[in-house]
Amino acid sequence: MLNYIRLGVVAALIALPQMGAAQEADTTPLNADIGFIFTTFMFLVSGFLVFFMAAGFAMLEAGLVRGKNVAMQLTKNVALFSLASLFYYILGYNLMYPGDAWTISSVLGAFSVTGLEPVGLDGADPDLTYASVGSDFFFQLMFCAATASIVSGALAERIKLLPFLLFVVLLTAVIYPIQASWKWGGGFLDAMGFQDFAGSTVVHSVGGWAALTGAIILGPRLGKYKNGKINPIPGSNLALATLGMFILWLGWFGFNGGSQLYMDTAGNVADISRIFSNTNIAAAAGVMVALVLTQLIYGKPDLTMILNGALAGLVSITAEPLTPTLVEATFIGGIGGAIVVFAVPMLDKLQIDDVVGAIPVHLFAGIWGTIAVAFTNDAANVLTQFYAIMIVGAFVCATSALAWMVLKLTIGLRVDEETEITGLDMAELGMEAYPEFNPV
Amino acid sequence: MLNYIRLGVVAALIALPQMGAAQEADTTPLNADIGFIFTTFMFLVSGFLVFFMAAGFAMLEAGLVRGKNVAMQLTKNVALFSLASLFYYILGYNLMYPGDAWTISSVLGAFSVTGLEPVGLDGADPDLTYASVGSDFFFQLMFCAATASIVSGALAERIKLLPFLLFVVLLTAVIYPIQASWKWGGGFLDAMGFQDFAGSTVVHSVGGWAALTGAIILGPRLGKYKNGKINPIPGSNLALATLGMFILWLGWFGFNGGSQLYMDTAGNVADISRIFSNTNIAAAAGVMVALVLTQLIYGKPDLTMILNGALAGLVSITAEPLTPTLVEATFIGGIGGAIVVFAVPMLDKLQIDDVVGAIPVHLFAGIWGTIAVAFTNDAANVLTQFYAIMIVGAFVCATSALAWMVLKLTIGLRVDEETEITGLDMAELGMEAYPEFNPV
Amino acid sequence: MLNYIRLGVVAALIALPQMGAAQEADTTPLNADIGFIFTTFMFLVSGFLVFFMAAGFAMLEAGLVRGKNVAMQLTKNVALFSLASLFYYILGYNLMYPGDAWTISSVLGAFSVTGLEPVGLDGADPDLTYASVGSDFFFQLMFCAATASIVSGALAERIKLLPFLLFVVLLTAVIYPIQASWKWGGGFLDAMGFQDFAGSTVVHSVGGWAALTGAIILGPRLGKYKNGKINPIPGSNLALATLGMFILWLGWFGFNGGSQLYMDTAGNVADISRIFSNTNIAAAAGVMVALVLTQLIYGKPDLTMILNGALAGLVSITAEPLTPTLVEATFIGGIGGAIVVFAVPMLDKLQIDDVVGAIPVHLFAGIWGTIAVAFTNDAANVLTQFYAIMIVGAFVCATSALAWMVLKLTIGLRVDEETEITGLDMAELGMEAYPEFNPV
Repeated sequence: MLNYIRLGVVAALIALPQMGAAQEADTTPLNADIGFIFTTFMFLVSGFLVFFMAAGFAMLEAGLVRGKNVAMQLTKNVALFSLASLFYYILGYNLMYPGDAWTISSVLGAFSVTGLEPVGLDGADPDLTYASVGSDFFFQLMFCAATASIVSGALAERIKLLPFLLFVVLLTAVIYPIQASWKWGGGFLDAMGFQDFAGSTVVHSVGGWAALTGAIILGPRLGKYKNGKINPIPGSNLALATLGMFILWLGWFGFNGGSQLYMDTAGNVADISRIFSNTNIAAAAGVMVALVLTQLIYGKPDLTMILNGALAGLVSITAEPLTPTLVEATFIGGIGGAIVVFAVPMLDKLQIDDVVGAIPVHLFAGIWGTIAVAFTNDAANVLTQFYAIMIVGAFVCATSALAWMVLKLTIGLRVDEETEITGLDMAELGMEAYPEFNPV
Repeated sequence: MLNYIRLGVVAALIALPQMGAAQEADTTPLNADIGFIFTTFMFLVSGFLVFFMAAGFAMLEAGLVRGKNVAMQLTKNVALFSLASLFYYILGYNLMYPGDAWTISSVLGAFSVTGLEPVGLDGADPDLTYASVGSDFFFQLMFCAATASIVSGALAERIKLLPFLLFVVLLTAVIYPIQASWKWGGGFLDAMGFQDFAGSTVVHSVGGWAALTGAIILGPRLGKYKNGKINPIPGSNLALATLGMFILWLGWFGFNGGSQLYMDTAGNVADISRIFSNTNIAAAAGVMVALVLTQLIYGKPDLTMILNGALAGLVSITAEPLTPTLVEATFIGGIGGAIVVFAVPMLDKLQIDDVVGAIPVHLFAGIWGTIAVAFTNDAANVLTQFYAIMIVGAFVCATSALAWMVLKLTIGLRVDEETEITGLDMAELGMEAYPEFNPV
Repeated sequence: MLNYIRLGVVAALIALPQMGAAQEADTTPLNADIGFIFTTFMFLVSGFLVFFMAAGFAMLEAGLVRGKNVAMQLTKNVALFSLASLFYYILGYNLMYPGDAWTISSVLGAFSVTGLEPVGLDGADPDLTYASVGSDFFFQLMFCAATASIVSGALAERIKLLPFLLFVVLLTAVIYPIQASWKWGGGFLDAMGFQDFAGSTVVHSVGGWAALTGAIILGPRLGKYKNGKINPIPGSNLALATLGMFILWLGWFGFNGGSQLYMDTAGNVADISRIFSNTNIAAAAGVMVALVLTQLIYGKPDLTMILNGALAGLVSITAEPLTPTLVEATFIGGIGGAIVVFAVPMLDKLQIDDVVGAIPVHLFAGIWGTIAVAFTNDAANVLTQFYAIMIVGAFVCATSALAWMVLKLTIGLRVDEETEITGLDMAELGMEAYPEFNPV
């Protein structure tokens, strides 16, 4: 009965919009606003999940470096996220969405500070078919920051703080946004039909290429490769590393789910559900493949490989988390897990020292995921996928290598030997992460 | 004024549905879709909260075992969640919802791989009164995984990895789904009027019974009970354990809140609000009762009891988080906290070695919570509640005991003495969680 | 075509409300309910984010105290949140919203236990223009608990458990709700035009003042100030402290975003997006200012200052996260970061021992943020802002000082010297947080 009355009121309201509109506006969203509210809120929820990935990277990396470098690794992670937040709004966001044409005003616009819609959308003309600019900015920012997080782990335990942070500025303000505009800003890769749903290439491989060039130019840690022998350097805290992995897995629901970009119809929210399920299964498959393979190859399961297996599964499904069936997602993620198990020793053979395994996880699994799109999404062409991987790789490698070299030749990239042996924490920060605990 | 114009547009759209429908469909959700979007999104948000409980269990258990077993405990937690994810979709989910009748097609359907709705719901006939299949699957999967997490803590520090993982497969693919179908799949317990809102029995006591049979068959850790004396074995990292507890508390809002199953009306969302408030109060009461009781009994508050008090409060309110008032929820959760304080030493007297207190928390408080429903929900009959507890307990104990015995007699359940003394980390994984820190 | 048919159905439904209303009510939310569902769900999501701040405070503080006091600091954090949860519903919530007039019934109502709306809103007359009572209660409770969390860090490593918990009861049941009612309960500060969007004053400075009076009355830790020299006492686990900071940052999106109080229109959700973006930028600016300033002043970046810089940036933007532009938010947060860098040594010069830097972060940055409102929100008057800061400060200082003094003179505030040297963990709890690790 109550329901009946309410419905009557609503019907009356719609029949007579000129009556009581202002009064009722606070109560009942306008029909045209409902989709906007759904999508905007979805971006905010997805965005805070992806934000939390900054904590995930920090814990993963803090757990995988030695105790003497933990405080520095934490400092780098907090600072890189903050720099990404600042430089993406100062420059990156507008550079990534240059608008339809390269007119003078669009170019000038690309080099301007991000402005959000006015308070209460007062006098604004929002795109009610999409979401608020603020929520889109918030969500996109987190992707840019994640790209920078990938780099910090690979170069840990030997790179100086200042050149690392300067590189982060360049990466988040310029390199990431420019290449992201090619796909997500409606640029030429998008026009060619390149498919990268949530960024196996646009985010993960970009971080991976930047890490790879950095690791090569920086060189390995002292003692890692000695007389042709590879010395394993275990991380100081696998509980933290596992926590970091779980936080990243959690954040990935926002990363991939939010990339649906719309939650205004039954079809869109059902798609986000598919994406959540596929993302989860891919990570699980990455775990089990890494567990089984390390058991078979080394006779014992390897926890750090298992953690990276989960992440590689997640990266692999990121280029296309929507179209695969659960079974297909299992295979895509599982192959990601296998890639990690084989790529980590391969990099070591090449004497490329990647402290946390970021290059296998984000670059190699990112490439695999980008190619795998062609198997589950008819809109994807495998050659276009390859082409985009190469173009993005060439651009990021060239710009990153140039940046790393300039930094190396000017302020220097690497701490001195004594600092590296003592640990960056005491030498560069004057503090220890665990001052009371006696290292062996 | 702007509002007025928008409302006019909406009214026009509704008055003339034949005009512009296709064009506007992206903007404004169809009225029939709005409830579907709300409920589906609620499942996704609840689901990622419950997902995060996997990290909570991992941290709780990693903090409560000794340093020499931490890496193994982390490995078990990551692997069990992954196995649950895989086997619940391969078999469990369809087994849990066998459909209305035991026809040949429904039985075959129960033994098939989970399929989600097509992309964009294209050509699908979704149940717009509920939620997307993918979101329901994602949410239900997390409950299945939580059941397995309960077992790992009780059996820590002595069970081998392989038999534990094989048991997880059986539990998540078969045992959990079959008994869950009796209530949540519309089976005979549901038909009898058994009330278990979010699973004090269906989830927590099931994990608890499996843990209890496992702990008995596996036997206590070396040195735990010696010459009739109980030797406390303190956990290695109470900060991690506390973090784990907080993450579980957070996840429980999704666990209980999402179990409302609908968020498509004012009444449903108000109910979810009640559930959040009651869930929180029950945990808080469990904390304070455990704190006060350990102070009174032992002269000092006991942090591990306090952490388990919170969890017992949460388990207690899980069978009925909706109908109690805040005062009733306080009592229900507080009694849960008391149960932990008295049950932990009782189990020790019986020489049942439960490393993290999972049996008091999940089994005993689960039973209490299931009975307590009768005090606050008129639809519940206390005898039916008892009956369901017994039936589920008998089923899980029988199947679990059989499985544990078969595993014991074939591949063996327990690591050898030397491994247990050295620690499972070095012996079974060849790595340590904290390699640089000198154990006392 | 399917869409077309659905829309037709909807139009028919609205045209003929007398047909099928009951049947369709489960599917499609009533129009009048949609805003209520949006806002209620927004409170629940924001609320669980703010809940998680309890874990953030616990980890931050556990990381910044010495290893011998970690278990106690964890115990205090779990217990204070639980007490806040209990006493806010027993007394605080109704005291905070005394209703429109101080009639006898409103006064009696203020001293009653919180009751939520009935299950399913059955027979209730909910305010459909706002949100469910349960969601509002859940959200507001988390603010009350955060206030108490602020106190625990400043007084760590020397205050006894019991007097601390008794103070928490007073703070959360009486002091916080009374002053909060002045602004958020529609009291005299609100009537004067005082602006405090999410509580730089109402929450953070209140916790800060209570901490300041406590720190003064309690006195510094043994050995902190000796012969006029300040001895730095490093925290035991900077990885945990960093995790705590990230969790707080995450929670702050709920803290500030949820304080919009409505998500029922496009304007409101766009405002929440602005708030998320501004909150994030302010934290990032606090980080970078603290990093650069400590580099310039001390020659090395200081990680604990950087963590507190993030938190100070967050506190600073809390009084007005909506109206600033991104550039303004950067300045507001950055100045917060600077305040921490200068205030921490200043407090040390005054021999006020604040273990975790809670007073600079929550009190000083809270005052700054409250004043800064006047620069970005035309509705704010800088004198009114000052006046409110003073009034709230005077009230909290007076009541807190009285409470601390009464506790000091009755049960005593401080552990004895031997306990303080041994550590509170062994002396007061009989357990250690890290029992296996050998302190240096």
